[in-house]
Amino acid sequence: MAITLGELADHVDCELRGSRETVIDSVATFSGAGPNAITFLSNAAYKPQLPDTRAAAVILKPADADDCPVAALLHDDPYACYARVASLIYPAPSHQPGVHPSAFVSDDAKVSGSAYIGPNAVVEDNAVIEDRCEIGPGSYVGPGCVIGAGTRLKANVTFVRAVTIGERGLIHPGAVVGGDGFGNAMTPNGWVKVPQVGGVRIGDDVEIGCNATVDCGAIEDTVIGNGVRLDNLVMIAHNCRIGDHTAMAAYTGIAGSTTIGARCLFAGKSGAVGHVTICDDVVVTGKTMVTKDIDQPGPYASSFAAEPAKEWAKNVARVRRLGKLFDRVSKLEKDKS
Amino acid sequence: MAITLGELADHVDCELRGSRETVIDSVATFSGAGPNAITFLSNAAYKPQLPDTRAAAVILKPADADDCPVAALLHDDPYACYARVASLIYPAPSHQPGVHPSAFVSDDAKVSGSAYIGPNAVVEDNAVIEDRCEIGPGSYVGPGCVIGAGTRLKANVTFVRAVTIGERGLIHPGAVVGGDGFGNAMTPNGWVKVPQVGGVRIGDDVEIGCNATVDCGAIEDTVIGNGVRLDNLVMIAHNCRIGDHTAMAAYTGIAGSTTIGARCLFAGKSGAVGHVTICDDVVVTGKTMVTKDIDQPGPYASSFAAEPAKEWAKNVARVRRLGKLFDRVSKLEKDKS
Amino acid sequence: MAITLGELADHVDCELRGSRETVIDSVATFSGAGPNAITFLSNAAYKPQLPDTRAAAVILKPADADDCPVAALLHDDPYACYARVASLIYPAPSHQPGVHPSAFVSDDAKVSGSAYIGPNAVVEDNAVIEDRCEIGPGSYVGPGCVIGAGTRLKANVTFVRAVTIGERGLIHPGAVVGGDGFGNAMTPNGWVKVPQVGGVRIGDDVEIGCNATVDCGAIEDTVIGNGVRLDNLVMIAHNCRIGDHTAMAAYTGIAGSTTIGARCLFAGKSGAVGHVTICDDVVVTGKTMVTKDIDQPGPYASSFAAEPAKEWAKNVARVRRLGKLFDRVSKLEKDKS
Repeated sequence: MAITLGELADHVDCELRGSRETVIDSVATFSGAGPNAITFLSNAAYKPQLPDTRAAAVILKPADADDCPVAALLHDDPYACYARVASLIYPAPSHQPGVHPSAFVSDDAKVSGSAYIGPNAVVEDNAVIEDRCEIGPGSYVGPGCVIGAGTRLKANVTFVRAVTIGERGLIHPGAVVGGDGFGNAMTPNGWVKVPQVGGVRIGDDVEIGCNATVDCGAIEDTVIGNGVRLDNLVMIAHNCRIGDHTAMAAYTGIAGSTTIGARCLFAGKSGAVGHVTICDDVVVTGKTMVTKDIDQPGPYASSFAAEPAKEWAKNVARVRRLGKLFDRVSKLEKDKS
Repeated sequence: MAITLGELADHVDCELRGSRETVIDSVATFSGAGPNAITFLSNAAYKPQLPDTRAAAVILKPADADDCPVAALLHDDPYACYARVASLIYPAPSHQPGVHPSAFVSDDAKVSGSAYIGPNAVVEDNAVIEDRCEIGPGSYVGPGCVIGAGTRLKANVTFVRAVTIGERGLIHPGAVVGGDGFGNAMTPNGWVKVPQVGGVRIGDDVEIGCNATVDCGAIEDTVIGNGVRLDNLVMIAHNCRIGDHTAMAAYTGIAGSTTIGARCLFAGKSGAVGHVTICDDVVVTGKTMVTKDIDQPGPYASSFAAEPAKEWAKNVARVRRLGKLFDRVSKLEKDKS
Repeated sequence: MAITLGELADHVDCELRGSRETVIDSVATFSGAGPNAITFLSNAAYKPQLPDTRAAAVILKPADADDCPVAALLHDDPYACYARVASLIYPAPSHQPGVHPSAFVSDDAKVSGSAYIGPNAVVEDNAVIEDRCEIGPGSYVGPGCVIGAGTRLKANVTFVRAVTIGERGLIHPGAVVGGDGFGNAMTPNGWVKVPQVGGVRIGDDVEIGCNATVDCGAIEDTVIGNGVRLDNLVMIAHNCRIGDHTAMAAYTGIAGSTTIGARCLFAGKSGAVGHVTICDDVVVTGKTMVTKDIDQPGPYASSFAAEPAKEWAKNVARVRRLGKLFDRVSKLEKDKS
């Protein structure tokens, strides 16, 4: 969508250096920017590219303004400002309200007249689809689910049953919410399934990535707070409680009945075992597994970084010989005394 | 479903202390139980909550019976007993038999009159859907698949081709069974695909989690035993053989041609490389990767637990300096002699 | 499909020892081979089974020919030769061209007359489906996607938007290509979504596994080269560039803006953090995480192999006590001097 720099500055409430009339129709990288594009400078590593930019305008910190050869939007947090600017230029695609003829909607479901139900979508008994929701093609909204106003399920999303989600949510394709938790009791005759009768309760402004899974609770609900961000292939097991604005990168896995605070960050392939409690503002680094309660904010780690395989093999061999090394040092100490 | 305590006790064949006439209509946690709920005491950590419970009844061990202020069902394994009780109160939802008008069923498929084929489901040539099966909305049953009696595919499940599953199976949304194994031969012109012509053979009473994948065999079948439990996002590669009642938690990945015994437990994010054999009753702990044959039952491990990142960084640095430490100790030993 | 050994030898251009007229109708393992099957000897571990084979023919190296009791196809790379032979015996299943009546195709999409659009598939505005493509049942081709000639999307595949793929691709069920990258800017009021406006550009002859995800670029396109092979549950984040003929096994995760060279191999559960560059011909071993640029070909590692849990616990404890061990060695050295 084309918009003037002046309008952008007003919308995001920041100072503009340059002409209010310049028309912006796209965002771009420094190297890819053309004459109607806006870009941003957030990471200092890109600053050397600033003098050569052919963008119409750059979003940057006030301190960088004098080095900018083109128009500038000044903001203390250029990346967040860029996010808002890009949202204005690229509004989320919207669909005409209505139920596609190939969709199936139960007579016992309640669908707002302003909602969109796409081709081959299915909405089951006692589901509620509120205003301006989008239930994308091939998506499934199971019995008793409640989809808050403005929430969008993209194509081939599955809400199994008893999932309640707030407003303005965005659920990406392949995500499955409300599947049975992994509850099994071992008996002499093998596993007996433990019925999973809780639901999933999700706050407002939540985004769930492609092929992520969030299981329903065993008895009570699994709970996802407001503003939570789950990347692709994340897995939240039954009975977990995830605090507001916590974000988890791809493959983060949280085992059952674990409680996580607000504003935590989980890097890719990290996770936590079941039945632990993690306080607010914890950062879990890539591939790290939390195995006990954490009550102090800050970063936690437990992984090694790749090395040439020969070097790494030496590390592994040395760790295996550590027991003998401890013995040798003890012997040296003893011999000395 | 409402049921009396007397009926429950008869069904699960255990001693009841209290009135047979009390009506139970739900399960609950200790803290959430109301006057018609039943709960259970399995983990001793919850015993302090027992005296205050407002549940109608508690399932517990005989040894705990005297501390129970309300009716009690006595069982040596309260969790397994709870699983059966909950199954009576919450029977799996069932559908009216029949093929939904929006489903597509090949004329060359064979579908039992007691089966349910949901909206927008697809059943291809030569598939067989046996009695009381449920093929959920948006699910796909590919050519030549055979779905045993009472097996349920929830919404948006995909059985690609040549998958045979036994009775009473439960496959969760997004699971893909029978996809091509990852077979590629490198040539000077790049990869050549190795056709994957085997199928998948699955036993009775198997449960497969959301977005899990089980690949077909390269030549012969991939085999999943009876009573196997696969959690969300598990991956079983081509030609694997998984023994009866083995359970694998989320993200467990088993590479090609690996054989796993019965009653093994794989914790989250664990797995095994290809072409190894693991005996019965092996427990693989979280994030552990099995890289060679295991012929002794018991627990196996290879992962580190999260520590504050600064502490962990010191560990990493010390491991990197181990080579020098070995040298220093050797020198001390040599100088001494 | 039945074919004579003579025809097979001609097709794959290799020497035949034995009768050209023998009919082959299947591939088999050594132990499973019957009188019309062909098998192969690539891994020397199977050579002891060669004298007893009941196969009609074996594909093997010239050096092994004299030990073969049946007909033989001689090739320096028996596995690659087998791949081609199997492709002749088991051609990919093909569908009758045409749009299934239950599919939905936008009036603004362009679909070749030789393409197949399966039951309940959806093709959105401005999508282009070229000659001989197959869009499988329940699959979704979003706005602006271009599917090159002969590319097949199996059942329940999702191409979200702005995905361009070349010729002869094969996308397995549950894969999601073109979902939003995980772009979020933290603000005092929580996360602000960064619109993901790039697309995904995929080369020719690419295969993507079940439930894998490839995100669209934040601004410019995510790029997957020719001949790339992605196994099940692989995750490629926004802005990545994957070089030609690189292969990634299950759960390989590549974080955002990382560039990977040609012919790299990533073993299962490996990956790379964001914003790194990896050169051609790098091998990343299982569970290894690349955290910085790699500019030398060869193998890289960072993982430990499973040990009996008690042994492993000792290793962990020793690593935790390494700081003290270093101190003890320093004291010994000091005392000596």
